[in-house]
Amino acid sequence: MYGELEVKGAELAADEGRNAAALAACRTLAEELTELQFPAPRILAFKEGSSESRYFVSRLIPAHKDPPYKQEANFHSSKHLTTEQWTKLKSSFVHFDDPSFCEWIRNLKVVPPEKRRSCRRWDLNIDLLGVIEVDDMAGVEQRQNKSGGGKYFFCSGGKKKEVKKETGLGLSFTKDENFGEWYSEVVVNGEMIEYYDISGCYILRPWAISIWEIMQTFFDAEIKKMKVKNCYFPLFVSPGVLQKEKDHIEGFAPEVAWVTKSGESELEVPIAIRPTSETVMYPYYSKWIRGHRDLPLKLNQWCNVVRWEFSNPTPFIRSREFLWQEGHTAFATKEEADTEVLQILELYRCIYEEFLAIPVTKGRKSELETFAGGLYTTSVEAFIPNTGRGIQGATSHCLGQNFAKMFEINFENEKGEKGMVWQNSWAYSTRTIGVMVMVHGDDKGLVLPPKVAALQLIVIPVPYKDADTQGIFDACVATVATLSDAGIRAEADLRDNYSPGWKYSNWEMKGVPLRIEIGPRDLANNQVRAVRRDNGAKTDISRVFLVEQVKGMLDKIQQNLFDVAKQKRDACVEVLKTWEEFVTALGQKKLILAPWCDEEDVEKDVKARTKGDMGAAKSLCTPFEQPELPEGTKCFASGKPAKKWTYWGRSY
Amino acid sequence: MYGELEVKGAELAADEGRNAAALAACRTLAEELTELQFPAPRILAFKEGSSESRYFVSRLIPAHKDPPYKQEANFHSSKHLTTEQWTKLKSSFVHFDDPSFCEWIRNLKVVPPEKRRSCRRWDLNIDLLGVIEVDDMAGVEQRQNKSGGGKYFFCSGGKKKEVKKETGLGLSFTKDENFGEWYSEVVVNGEMIEYYDISGCYILRPWAISIWEIMQTFFDAEIKKMKVKNCYFPLFVSPGVLQKEKDHIEGFAPEVAWVTKSGESELEVPIAIRPTSETVMYPYYSKWIRGHRDLPLKLNQWCNVVRWEFSNPTPFIRSREFLWQEGHTAFATKEEADTEVLQILELYRCIYEEFLAIPVTKGRKSELETFAGGLYTTSVEAFIPNTGRGIQGATSHCLGQNFAKMFEINFENEKGEKGMVWQNSWAYSTRTIGVMVMVHGDDKGLVLPPKVAALQLIVIPVPYKDADTQGIFDACVATVATLSDAGIRAEADLRDNYSPGWKYSNWEMKGVPLRIEIGPRDLANNQVRAVRRDNGAKTDISRVFLVEQVKGMLDKIQQNLFDVAKQKRDACVEVLKTWEEFVTALGQKKLILAPWCDEEDVEKDVKARTKGDMGAAKSLCTPFEQPELPEGTKCFASGKPAKKWTYWGRSY
Repeated sequence: MYGELEVKGAELAADEGRNAAALAACRTLAEELTELQFPAPRILAFKEGSSESRYFVSRLIPAHKDPPYKQEANFHSSKHLTTEQWTKLKSSFVHFDDPSFCEWIRNLKVVPPEKRRSCRRWDLNIDLLGVIEVDDMAGVEQRQNKSGGGKYFFCSGGKKKEVKKETGLGLSFTKDENFGEWYSEVVVNGEMIEYYDISGCYILRPWAISIWEIMQTFFDAEIKKMKVKNCYFPLFVSPGVLQKEKDHIEGFAPEVAWVTKSGESELEVPIAIRPTSETVMYPYYSKWIRGHRDLPLKLNQWCNVVRWEFSNPTPFIRSREFLWQEGHTAFATKEEADTEVLQILELYRCIYEEFLAIPVTKGRKSELETFAGGLYTTSVEAFIPNTGRGIQGATSHCLGQNFAKMFEINFENEKGEKGMVWQNSWAYSTRTIGVMVMVHGDDKGLVLPPKVAALQLIVIPVPYKDADTQGIFDACVATVATLSDAGIRAEADLRDNYSPGWKYSNWEMKGVPLRIEIGPRDLANNQVRAVRRDNGAKTDISRVFLVEQVKGMLDKIQQNLFDVAKQKRDACVEVLKTWEEFVTALGQKKLILAPWCDEEDVEKDVKARTKGDMGAAKSLCTPFEQPELPEGTKCFASGKPAKKWTYWGRSY
Repeated sequence: MYGELEVKGAELAADEGRNAAALAACRTLAEELTELQFPAPRILAFKEGSSESRYFVSRLIPAHKDPPYKQEANFHSSKHLTTEQWTKLKSSFVHFDDPSFCEWIRNLKVVPPEKRRSCRRWDLNIDLLGVIEVDDMAGVEQRQNKSGGGKYFFCSGGKKKEVKKETGLGLSFTKDENFGEWYSEVVVNGEMIEYYDISGCYILRPWAISIWEIMQTFFDAEIKKMKVKNCYFPLFVSPGVLQKEKDHIEGFAPEVAWVTKSGESELEVPIAIRPTSETVMYPYYSKWIRGHRDLPLKLNQWCNVVRWEFSNPTPFIRSREFLWQEGHTAFATKEEADTEVLQILELYRCIYEEFLAIPVTKGRKSELETFAGGLYTTSVEAFIPNTGRGIQGATSHCLGQNFAKMFEINFENEKGEKGMVWQNSWAYSTRTIGVMVMVHGDDKGLVLPPKVAALQLIVIPVPYKDADTQGIFDACVATVATLSDAGIRAEADLRDNYSPGWKYSNWEMKGVPLRIEIGPRDLANNQVRAVRRDNGAKTDISRVFLVEQVKGMLDKIQQNLFDVAKQKRDACVEVLKTWEEFVTALGQKKLILAPWCDEEDVEKDVKARTKGDMGAAKSLCTPFEQPELPEGTKCFASGKPAKKWTYWGRSY
C-alpha cells in the first residue's frame, strides 16, 4: 500500500520551503488513514482553494470497530454538516471490528463545503461524500500549522485526463457528469481492464474474460448446431493477397500494422497483421471448393485482430487489438446466404438482449456504411443514452460474389454448370462488453447482468461483536454450497481483513448482481438478506426457500436491467421529418428515426453538414421493422421522396 | 475435379513433338479414370524408366458396380501378378454400385513390376498397390503407340519436396521410408493442416482445431479447479519491457517479429510481437501484488504467439505462429511454486498419456536447456521412434525470483516484512497435435485416439444391389442416434456419391477410431460390423449390446494406442555408460539413458562432438524416476563421477 500513496500535502509543504521530513510524516499519516479502507485510495492533501483542490474526489470509507451509536457520539463535528450530508457520510460507513474509525474521526472535523459554482468536480465530490475538512494532522500538525493556518482536504487521488497506470478502486467521476472518465475508471476499478503501456492496447483481466467466455460458450454451441466448424488461420497476410480485393483493402489499409523485421533482419517483403480474415481465408476457399458437394462451407475462428486506429482509443470499444469471432461461409445460392445472414443476426440479438440485457435494433446498413467489399451489411445497433451515440453491436455481412470473383471461388453445380459461390462473413467482438458497461454501469461501478456474470451472487458474513461469528461463517459456506448445487454461480467473501462495508463496496464496484448478507439476526431467524445490485432493493429470504427465491431474483434482475435499458433507450428516440428537427434532436443527443431517400450523396451531405467537435451524424441502420411510410413523405435531409425510415445519430 | 488433373503423359507427348490435342485426350482419359475414386488423385502418366517414374505413387481405388466374383472374371490380367500382389490389389477394391470398375479394368493390364533396387519409391509403390501398367490408352492410343511402344504408368500425383498448394488425398510416402514427407502429407491429406503462402505459417483446419478444443476443455477445467483465472494480455510488447530481463531476451531476440509501420506511417518505436508473455505480464504483476493477501496470483491465457524461426518449419511442431496456453503464477514462497510446477506437469502428462495416448517422461531439464531467465525447467518428453528424436512435449518452469527482481514484484508478508514473489510459467501448444500424428499415424493416414477424436465413430452404409437400401440407411441413422445418446461422438456418412470403399479410405485417412459398416447381412442379423482403425480388427456386434460394446472398443483402442506407442518407445531406449556406446546408439536412433556428471560444459562438448547433418545430440531430461546409480559410476561423456541418469538424443 505504501508504494501507492502520493501525499500532495507533503509536496506542498516542501514547495513552501519546509524540510523533507514532512514527506515521511505525511506518509505515516496517510497510511494510518487508509488502513483497511475502501476504496484503497491514493491519498492527496490539498490546501483549500488551491487549483489542485479541483481534483478533490470520492469517498473514504474507514473500517471501524465501534457500533453506529458510538460512532455518532464520537463524531462531534457532525453539527457542521446538513442532515442530508451527515446521513450520506454516515451511510457510507459500515460497522466492523476495527478501532480505526474512532481514532481517525477524532482527528477530523466535518464541515459543509462552500458552494463553488466554478468548480464542477467540487460539487460532484460534495454530492458523493460530504466534505471532510482537516485542521489537525496527527504527526504533521506543527508543520501544517506553520504553513499559515491553511485547511487541508484529504481525498482519494484525483485523476488526470489520461488514466494510464495509477488507479485506485473508487470512482472519481459520475456517469452523468463525465461519462468518458467515468467509463475509463469503471472498467479499471471494476477490474475488467488494466491500461497497457502501448496506447490503444488493453489488458483484459479475468473479470472481463469470464464474461467473454460465457458468451463464447453460448455462441459457439449455437453455430455448431448450424454446422459451422471452428478453424484457425494465420495472423499474417502477405501484401499481395491482402490487396486483392480493392474496395476491401481501401477500407482497411490505413489501419494495417506491418511486420518488417525479425530479430535483426529486415524481411524481404513486409507482412501484414490481419485486420480481418477475408483475404487470409478466401484463397483457400478457392482451393477447397470444387463442386456443389463442397458447399456450403462454414468456418469460424476465435482470434485476435489488429487495427491500428489513431482516434480515441477506448477500452473494449475501440482498441488496436481485440478479440472476436469471425465466421466465413460460402453457399451455392444467394438464398442460402441471405438466410444465414439473418440467422446469425438473430444470435447477435440474443447475445445483446438475452445475455447482456441491452436492447438492440436489427437493420440494414446504408451503402456508405456497408462492409468494404461486401454486398450488404446487417447489424444489431445499440445506443448509449449518456452520450447520445449509437454503437454498432455486431455485423452480419452478405459479401455477394465480389470476393468469389477476386479469389476465383468457383464450383460446378449438379448439372455440371460452373458458378461462383455466395459468401457471408459475420463477427462480434469484445466490444460487446464495453457496451454492457456503458449501458448498465452506475456511480457505484459495474452492473453485470446475471446471465453473463462469472459470479452471480456474493455471500458476505456480517459478524457483530459477541455474536456467533463461527455460526455466521458456517451459514455463509452452507448457503454457497446450496446455491452452487443448484447451478448458481455463488461465492462467499470470508476474508477477515476487510469489513463488510468494504466488501459491499468492492462487490458493488465489480457489479455482482446479488449480494447476500448473513448477520446474527439472520442466523437467529434462519434467513438471509438479499440485496440487488441493480436497484439496491433488500429482501429477507428464508433459507428454506433460498434456491427458488434467488433464482427468481436473478431472473428479475436480468429482466429489469433490460427493461430499464430499453426504457432509457426508447426515451431517446425522436421520430422526425425535417432538417431543423434533426439538428435540434442531434443537439439533444437523440436517437433519430427519420424518413430518408436512401441516396449515398445525401448521407455524405448530412455528414458534412453536421461535422463538429462531437463528430458528424450518420445513418445507423434502416430497421427491419419499418413504421408506415405514408405516400408522399419526404426525405428529412434532401426533400426528395423518402424510401424508408432510417435511424440516424452520432456513433462510436 | 478437372482443375486438379495434371497429365504428365500429355506433357511428355508434347515434349516429343506431338501436337497439343494430346493434352485434351489425356485429360478426358484421366477424368474417366479418376471418376469417383479414392483418393481423388492428381493423375500422372510417366514413361517407364523415365526419371519422373520415381514419383510413381499410391493406390487407385475405383468405385465399381460388379460383385467381387465378376470383377475377378473381368480382370483378365490378374495372371500377371503374384498371388500376394493380386490379393493386395483386390482388397483395396470394394464392391459398390458403379459400372466404372469393369470399364476401367478392361483398359488396364496389371503386371508385376520389375524390381528396381535403385528406386526406393518404386518399391514403396508396389508394396502399396501392385503396379498397373497401361498399354492401351483409350482415346490416345495412336499417340501413345507412336511414341515408341513405351509403356505408361498411371498413378496418383507425385510430390515435390516442398508440399505447398497442390495436394491430393492419398499418401505418396510411407511412414517408415520417408518419415518427413509422410508427415507433411498426412497432416494435409488428413485435413488437419493446409499449407499457407507465408512460410512457417499453417492453417489449422477444423479437424485439428476440434482436437485442440477437446484438450482445452479438459485443461481449462483443471486449472480453474486450481483457482487459475483466464485473462488476455496484448499481442504487442514495447522494446523496453521486452529487454528488461537479459537472459530471457537473449533467448528470444533472434526470433522476435517487429511491427514498424501502420498504414503508410512508420511507428515512432518498433513494437514486438510476443514470443511468450513473461515481459508483457510481469510489470502488471508488480502493480497488482502489494501484500501477502494478493498472493498467490494465478493467471492463464489462451492465445497465439510468434517466433520467427528459420530452420525447418514443420506443421504443429515448429511454426512461426502457434496457439498455446501460458500460465503465469506468483507465490509468497518457493514451496508453493515448487508444488505447482509439478501439479501442472502432471496435467501435461495427463494430456499426453491419457488423451493423446503418448507415453512421456517427466523430468528436469539441464542447465543448458532451462527456460531463458528461469530457475529450473521441468518437462514431459515424448519420443518419435521413426526419427529417433526426442520432443519436448510441454514445459512447466519455476522462474524463481529472477523476473521478480527485474520487474520489482514485491510484497509485504504477515509480519510486515518485504519479500519478493516466487514465480512459475507453464505452457503447452498445438505441438501436442503434431506429436500425436507422428506417434500414431500410419500409411493409411491419421490415427486418432478416441478421447481426442472429434468423431469417434463413423457409420457407413454398405448397400448391395437389390438389398433393402432404405432399411440399411435407416439402421445407420438409428445407430448414430443410439450412440450419440450414450455420449459417443458418432456420425453416419450417408453421401450417395461415394462408394463404401471411398468412404472407408476417407475416414481411415482422417483417423476416425472406429468404423461401423451396415450391409444387408448385418441388417438381417440385427448386427453391425465394427472395424478398428488402430489394428484393422473386425467384430460383428449385436445391435442389442451396441452401446456397451462400442464403449468397450473405444476404451480398448485408446489403451492399445498407448500400449503400442509405449512398447515402441521402450524398445528404443538404450541404457549405456560409455561414449562409444553412445555414438553407436545415436546412429541407431536410440533414446539414450546414460549416467552424467551434470556439468554444462560437458553437455556443450557432447553437442559439439555430435554435430552433423542430423543435428547434434543433447540432454533431453533427467527423469524424476531415477534408476539406481551405483557408487563410482562415471559420466558417459566426461568420465567424471556421474550424478544422475539423464536421457540424451537428437530432438525436435
